[in-house]
Amino acid sequence: VTAPASVDFWFDFASTYSYVAALRLPPLAAARGVQVRWQPFLLGPLFTAQQGIKDSPFNVNPVRGRYMWRDLERLCRKYQLPWRQPSQFPRNSLLAARVALLSARTPEEPQLVRRLFEAGFAEDLDIASPEVVGRELQTAGLPPGKLLAQAALPETKDQLRAQTVRAEALGLFGAPSFVVRGELFFGQDRLEDALDWAQASAN
Amino acid sequence: VTAPASVDFWFDFASTYSYVAALRLPPLAAARGVQVRWQPFLLGPLFTAQQGIKDSPFNVNPVRGRYMWRDLERLCRKYQLPWRQPSQFPRNSLLAARVALLSARTPEEPQLVRRLFEAGFAEDLDIASPEVVGRELQTAGLPPGKLLAQAALPETKDQLRAQTVRAEALGLFGAPSFVVRGELFFGQDRLEDALDWAQASAN
Repeated sequence: VTAPASVDFWFDFASTYSYVAALRLPPLAAARGVQVRWQPFLLGPLFTAQQGIKDSPFNVNPVRGRYMWRDLERLCRKYQLPWRQPSQFPRNSLLAARVALLSARTPEEPQLVRRLFEAGFAEDLDIASPEVVGRELQTAGLPPGKLLAQAALPETKDQLRAQTVRAEALGLFGAPSFVVRGELFFGQDRLEDALDWAQASAN
Repeated sequence: VTAPASVDFWFDFASTYSYVAALRLPPLAAARGVQVRWQPFLLGPLFTAQQGIKDSPFNVNPVRGRYMWRDLERLCRKYQLPWRQPSQFPRNSLLAARVALLSARTPEEPQLVRRLFEAGFAEDLDIASPEVVGRELQTAGLPPGKLLAQAALPETKDQLRAQTVRAEALGLFGAPSFVVRGELFFGQDRLEDALDWAQASAN
């Protein structure tokens, strides 16, 4: 028996380029028979540890920020993805990351991830709000009350902190990132390269 | 009479991703009938003004730096470009930028740009050295003695400083960048998108 080709997809629900990658990845991976392992995490601690900043790099350097918004608009047109520039950036993605972690390896996980990203970047909703997150859990077929309560437990918080530690150990410095058998690919522009690598290195 | 499609290619001879873009661009642009306007400039002043750093961002954040070297190795394999990780990074690209500016709009310009990039990233030569630059001028069919002397003139220095001012006015924050009728594309990953834009917006 051989292991199926798979890719670890590391993302932050507040990250604009993670949104593009999260929506593009599932159909492309499925078409190649590559399994997606969703890895929600928080960029904030990485940015603080590596760059000493407490905000998005796109806010810290507004010239780069202006470009990013224009680039996102063009990318979403290119890939025919819905897009609405969020009225607040970055959103606090802590709660979204926690419930996504709690849904790990359930059949509902891909749909939940997609819905949370669309809430943030197609509908300009505040993904830090329990109402918004609860509604998306419901839509994805998961029990909102139960998961929102679990999200507040110390073990869930620890689980998300452990993701940051894993991300650092893998050499991550931004999102989205793809990891295939220890090989790191950064940025949604590397999505196809990561899938190529997964297919080539399988078996 | 209609203007031919063209792309302004902004690059720094010390920039690794500029190397990849500089070698990939000419055949792709030629195949689409898009004219390349070479725009050598220095990233240093931009990085200092926008990020307050005096070194390459890849050195300032070594985690990102480690990734970049691996990514470059993979990219050059993918595009079948020669690659040798430079023993010093970044190189001082001041002299190279000045002689490239002096060769602007000569038939030898594309060959000179290519040779200077290959010196830095395929042969690990010091492009700050007048001997190295003089040899590449000669190879490109340009008079080394004359151009090296001109490179030291105040008007040449001013011309390169003016490039930085133009780069800032265009919203640049890194290299390589492509500008098509005011539309900015950042990174060698956007090369094809920039050429698409040039073709679509011509006439």
